[in-house]
Amino acid sequence: MARIAIDAMGGDIGVSATIGGVEKYLASKDSCACVSFDFFGKEDLIAQEVAKTSRLKNFDYCITSCEKVIESDMRPALALRNGKCSSMLEAISSVADGKNDAVVSSGNTGAYMALSKIMLKMIDGIERPALMSLLPSFDGRSVVLDLGANVDCGAKNLIQFAIMGDAAAKILLNKKDPSVALLNIGVEKNKGTEAIRSAGAFLEARHGMNYVGFIEGNDIFMDKADVIVCDGFSGNIALKTIEGTIKFLGKLLKKGINDSIRGKVSYLFGAGIANSIKLSIDPRNHNGASLVGLNGIAIKSHGNSDSVGFAHAVCVANDLASSRFVENIKEAIENTEMESCDVY
Amino acid sequence: MARIAIDAMGGDIGVSATIGGVEKYLASKDSCACVSFDFFGKEDLIAQEVAKTSRLKNFDYCITSCEKVIESDMRPALALRNGKCSSMLEAISSVADGKNDAVVSSGNTGAYMALSKIMLKMIDGIERPALMSLLPSFDGRSVVLDLGANVDCGAKNLIQFAIMGDAAAKILLNKKDPSVALLNIGVEKNKGTEAIRSAGAFLEARHGMNYVGFIEGNDIFMDKADVIVCDGFSGNIALKTIEGTIKFLGKLLKKGINDSIRGKVSYLFGAGIANSIKLSIDPRNHNGASLVGLNGIAIKSHGNSDSVGFAHAVCVANDLASSRFVENIKEAIENTEMESCDVY
Repeated sequence: MARIAIDAMGGDIGVSATIGGVEKYLASKDSCACVSFDFFGKEDLIAQEVAKTSRLKNFDYCITSCEKVIESDMRPALALRNGKCSSMLEAISSVADGKNDAVVSSGNTGAYMALSKIMLKMIDGIERPALMSLLPSFDGRSVVLDLGANVDCGAKNLIQFAIMGDAAAKILLNKKDPSVALLNIGVEKNKGTEAIRSAGAFLEARHGMNYVGFIEGNDIFMDKADVIVCDGFSGNIALKTIEGTIKFLGKLLKKGINDSIRGKVSYLFGAGIANSIKLSIDPRNHNGASLVGLNGIAIKSHGNSDSVGFAHAVCVANDLASSRFVENIKEAIENTEMESCDVY
Repeated sequence: MARIAIDAMGGDIGVSATIGGVEKYLASKDSCACVSFDFFGKEDLIAQEVAKTSRLKNFDYCITSCEKVIESDMRPALALRNGKCSSMLEAISSVADGKNDAVVSSGNTGAYMALSKIMLKMIDGIERPALMSLLPSFDGRSVVLDLGANVDCGAKNLIQFAIMGDAAAKILLNKKDPSVALLNIGVEKNKGTEAIRSAGAFLEARHGMNYVGFIEGNDIFMDKADVIVCDGFSGNIALKTIEGTIKFLGKLLKKGINDSIRGKVSYLFGAGIANSIKLSIDPRNHNGASLVGLNGIAIKSHGNSDSVGFAHAVCVANDLASSRFVENIKEAIENTEMESCDVY
């Protein structure tokens, strides 16, 4: 039974997206009956929104009233000082206290990361948390981390990200022995920064992980690895470049279709294909970045997530919360003798 | 009058691509009558290929016979030792000697970069050369650098890349006052690495450049800047991620078209649109990365360039060689008082 804390007030859209998202999750084929929800936020607004649902209103849920909301532009330091009684802090706090098993929020990313780190604390042996997400690939999906939590990463951080990504892929992709790769600017062993080369040498020598070497940016979608590990800077650049390229091609296609009669006829027949591609690459269907490395499960939903996106973030939260995710990372870290290697 | 040295033997395809590329350049609308060519390589092979052309054989060209070819897998250090009498080294050397104004090669990238740096030497005040290329955008094109020559870049390197990109955009994009941006993981001034933040602060305070701030990966195609500056690691990741994303969407589209009759009918009407999009994003039409920062113009054409791609690289070489590109960089560097700022 997974108990999920929902920051009902977070995000640009607010309660209609968060409560609506949980309702959509319950209606989806991926939903699980062994789950309960604890909504944090303004009680009347939440109750009003729950009343509009058909599944959720008869489901296992409760509301924890919180009067305050952390605004989207509040600096993390201020959120740490003034977060008490806010929906975000109280939701995270409930996981730290063991009352819930995971928390999901679409709120202020900086504040969420800072509060999660303080409240949930890091797993022993992990130095920095990473932002991890699922990306579509031609034949499935892959786990990618770090997507922007850490600007500078040493070899040690990359190795820890690999261990966490491996644990996540076993659960989220249902793979027994996920393949793990490091994102680099070449596949040869002498390519890249010193941090990447050291991390690669370490992972290659380490038994117990299916490390497959370096991959390049053009391999991200090509199913070369189930787990793609990178520093937060290039991970974020890659992720946003993907978004930009998809948008660019979409704009070119739209222009082509609108500019001629042949284009319009083509769209008439091809709309189904376009929609199915849209669906498979729709960021809402890959929403829900996990803040991994913490003693608890914290899922960050995109700030402008609608109910479709939020439902996917809830799904990720439930998958991780109903497994031994944090325990698996702890065991893997304990079994990795990093001290004995020369990456320090 | 621009005199262009061509390493006729470089690249996977060889003389048919290089000589064919020059022929295609001469036939293109962008070609210029004030240009001459000096082909370096095996004389009989080159003469044989020139004989097949219609424009080039009556044009201003000569052949410099070189018996050796630098193989694609030769290590740069070995190329430096044994490069004498090779088509690549002799072509670069002709630019260093002032016999030619630019060199174009599709050969071994590492060897080409090492030889160019040794033969042409760096411009005073520039610490490292950068790989610069043109990328398509929705309304035009942008100049992007560094695309992989430097794995680690400090603020000083990024500032120098910005100055060189600015000079290039004035010529290649024909812009009087090109906008210049730094690629980062957020647009706020506190985002990114210390190197990027320092470079941003310096460029903002510097008069004489239209610096517009940070842009993110999803802005690359959105015409937010004429010049996009980044470190070689994230530049290479972004470039290859673009390639990968285009390939991924192309595969999804092809699958959609082949999987249904509606798809096939749609393609029947939409083939023209697909082809026009393919044309605008075809890497061959953006081929020709400049190795900037050197006392001379060295253009790297992709190793597997066919004649279409090589023609575009020749076009870039001619545009830069028939302008005051290197002189403009020298003047801009001289006018930039970097010593007085705190990026050191």
